[in-house]
Amino acid sequence: VRTAGRVLALLALGASGIGAAEPVATAAEVAAAEQLRDAALRSDEAWALVSSLTTTVGPRLAGTPGDRAAVEWAVEALASGGFANVRRSEVVVPRWVRGEAQFELLDPVALPMVTAALGGSVGTGDEGLTAELLRVESVDALRALPAGVARGRIVYFAGRTARTRDGSGFARAVRARTEGPSAAAAVGAVGVVIRSIGTSDDRIAHTGTLVYNIAQTRIPAVAISNPDADLLERRLASGRPLRARLRVTARDLPQQRSANVIAEIPGTDRAGEIVLIGAHLDSWDLGHGALDNGAGVAIAIAAARLIGQSAVRPRRTIRVVLFANEEYGLSGSGRYVADELESLARHAFALEADMGAGPVFRLSARVSSRDWALVQQIHRVVGGLGVELGSNDATGGADTTALRRRGVPILMPQLDATRYFDVHHSANDTLDKVDPQALRQSVAVFAVAAFLAARFEDTPGRLPAEATR
Amino acid sequence: VRTAGRVLALLALGASGIGAAEPVATAAEVAAAEQLRDAALRSDEAWALVSSLTTTVGPRLAGTPGDRAAVEWAVEALASGGFANVRRSEVVVPRWVRGEAQFELLDPVALPMVTAALGGSVGTGDEGLTAELLRVESVDALRALPAGVARGRIVYFAGRTARTRDGSGFARAVRARTEGPSAAAAVGAVGVVIRSIGTSDDRIAHTGTLVYNIAQTRIPAVAISNPDADLLERRLASGRPLRARLRVTARDLPQQRSANVIAEIPGTDRAGEIVLIGAHLDSWDLGHGALDNGAGVAIAIAAARLIGQSAVRPRRTIRVVLFANEEYGLSGSGRYVADELESLARHAFALEADMGAGPVFRLSARVSSRDWALVQQIHRVVGGLGVELGSNDATGGADTTALRRRGVPILMPQLDATRYFDVHHSANDTLDKVDPQALRQSVAVFAVAAFLAARFEDTPGRLPAEATR
Repeated sequence: VRTAGRVLALLALGASGIGAAEPVATAAEVAAAEQLRDAALRSDEAWALVSSLTTTVGPRLAGTPGDRAAVEWAVEALASGGFANVRRSEVVVPRWVRGEAQFELLDPVALPMVTAALGGSVGTGDEGLTAELLRVESVDALRALPAGVARGRIVYFAGRTARTRDGSGFARAVRARTEGPSAAAAVGAVGVVIRSIGTSDDRIAHTGTLVYNIAQTRIPAVAISNPDADLLERRLASGRPLRARLRVTARDLPQQRSANVIAEIPGTDRAGEIVLIGAHLDSWDLGHGALDNGAGVAIAIAAARLIGQSAVRPRRTIRVVLFANEEYGLSGSGRYVADELESLARHAFALEADMGAGPVFRLSARVSSRDWALVQQIHRVVGGLGVELGSNDATGGADTTALRRRGVPILMPQLDATRYFDVHHSANDTLDKVDPQALRQSVAVFAVAAFLAARFEDTPGRLPAEATR
Repeated sequence: VRTAGRVLALLALGASGIGAAEPVATAAEVAAAEQLRDAALRSDEAWALVSSLTTTVGPRLAGTPGDRAAVEWAVEALASGGFANVRRSEVVVPRWVRGEAQFELLDPVALPMVTAALGGSVGTGDEGLTAELLRVESVDALRALPAGVARGRIVYFAGRTARTRDGSGFARAVRARTEGPSAAAAVGAVGVVIRSIGTSDDRIAHTGTLVYNIAQTRIPAVAISNPDADLLERRLASGRPLRARLRVTARDLPQQRSANVIAEIPGTDRAGEIVLIGAHLDSWDLGHGALDNGAGVAIAIAAARLIGQSAVRPRRTIRVVLFANEEYGLSGSGRYVADELESLARHAFALEADMGAGPVFRLSARVSSRDWALVQQIHRVVGGLGVELGSNDATGGADTTALRRRGVPILMPQLDATRYFDVHHSANDTLDKVDPQALRQSVAVFAVAAFLAARFEDTPGRLPAEATR
């Protein structure tokens, strides 16, 4: 903790711009980075990639035929894109089947709501279950209730997702989805319904994985659309008890095989060191996986390809990793870290694209304090694209968390999430929601960041391993 | 035709404002109309009505329990609202059950699309059908194809609905839905899929009735969402034949009983003459019937109630008619005309609210040319609310068509449809889509129009019966 404190003190100086930042790139490197940036802004390659993936494959939940088709698509896209060492690394993934999900208010007339099972939910049995609703605002509010009040009820988590640029509104709200089902089971509930974790007023339910606590009974859990939750609130306002029927036919099937797809732009004199650009290839089943995460896949591939075409070669190797099954358990990144345990110390920096198509509004990082000058250097090249300089306490994305925890420094171009959670994990995640201009800008920032990281003269410092905290 | 020509020539004068319009209301009447307008702009009564109908009843397709609950709701709302002669007039309605609708592209991986059966579609049988797609832009384009090319195919109608303020984009596009299925059957097709008749980029399919031609085989017909149609177009662009699977379990059940719900604000010295304000009470099953047509019901009731509270009494009787089953065959308005055949000559004017919550952007009409001064008079009171003066060739709404054809003059406050077809006939038709301020403005215009029509000194002229055209 003390070390972290010193790091942050130094960083505060760096981030606030006191003192001139030391240049960490040569004039030729800066010029090459600017050329990458400008080439990205003219390129439609990322758009072509996300269009192709969503059109020819579409939904690609782990373990499904779509998932397998996506792996084939990725291998083909990378091999035909001039990458070296294109390979698939097998990953065992869970296979969950959504089935049907019905949630309806019963009195006086049955009113069916737009409903989606949460990822991993167990089923109710074909007959479903009927119970009185208990409204709570949040997991914490549920835990504060007197014992017994939730027994035999369907718990309704009412919290709304706030619209924010940095995704923090989502991060606050999502606990109802991840922790809510087991928290409700712990107090005797028989089912869970949540207001969708999403910011849209469309009549569309947002799925996403729940996390069952192994010590609790697994109870079925679904999300309803925001307008349905609004109606539910208006009915609850009458003060009368509300009965509802819940029916879910979701189930688990045996595990399947999927793969991380990996490809490289080889480095020169430091080829053994890796700058990783990650994005997950899988998607939820309800949409076409355009913003989550076809856009991220496209950003990663297009940024690396641009670097591969630069006259100034990357000294470190740029490695694109398209992770398997991020959505339903982070299988691919877990497998990657296990496979690469010996080489993690040679992972100089990791970047991840998994928050839509952008634009990048801020450049954050989590690097050794003495490497902050690299972040500043990147920012000097991309600041004109509307990118502010962030801080050095970034968490990175879901798939790079396992790397960060083992000390791999993180560069984090933050993608603007203001409208991302309108469509995230919903049927509305389709190509028309991708803004081509934002996508180009995002590719520019990722390309510049990865390129300058691959040229960075110093040996990057490591993060403290988080297990020691 | 010659008569109509003379009428239009006179109207052109009137509408262009050449010559001072003759006042057709006294200063006291104008003042009372202005008070109605201003009271409407302060009132949340219409909002309370549409909120109540959508919250306590919700979907109310003809013949369903929701439809019966809506009739009860309407009787209660009108009786408690101070209306006289509140009554239900029985209407026999068809009962169609949506069942499930699935449409998926088959190769290389099955890609299910967001699909809704068109209202009245027959089913495919439980096993569904598989066929190659044939893309056509429109019904006219289909009819222009060489014989035989559609045989055994699923015809895909690709036409888009243009966003317009007056609903004309919808009117042009909707033929694919109404005429498309039988046009396709006539050339040997086995099924029909249309791009949703709607302007939203949400992944939501828009339903609405088809009209089978009695001389053709009934084939199943569905709509897919706009983003799905976009994806379909991108796949068709590859030039490869596309196979699809269509499965629809829709079916007809025996007819049910519903009702027109009627209530009045009695007139004084001309109480035997009627100014009718109509709105249909039923809705499609997918949404909550907020814009279509809870808003119209609320406008009709709230406008009439305001008139009932005016110190200056309406000379003619204001009659609110909440029609049964507009959506699936205009049962209620057909029944109303049959019931009222003897009294149609005493229907002085008819208004209808069935294009969402507004605001009213234009005041049109279809009245005897010498009564255009009334329209001008109304416009002088509401023009300041952003209402332009329209023309005298209005068609009125669906439910008042039968009245118009039999000579009843039409006053038509035109509700702004710019965003209406984003949600029309879809799951997205929920209360949050109703703009409370627009709703107040609409009530103001309907109240002023109906009030001044009920005070109009002259005996209104009749329209030429359209059967004679």
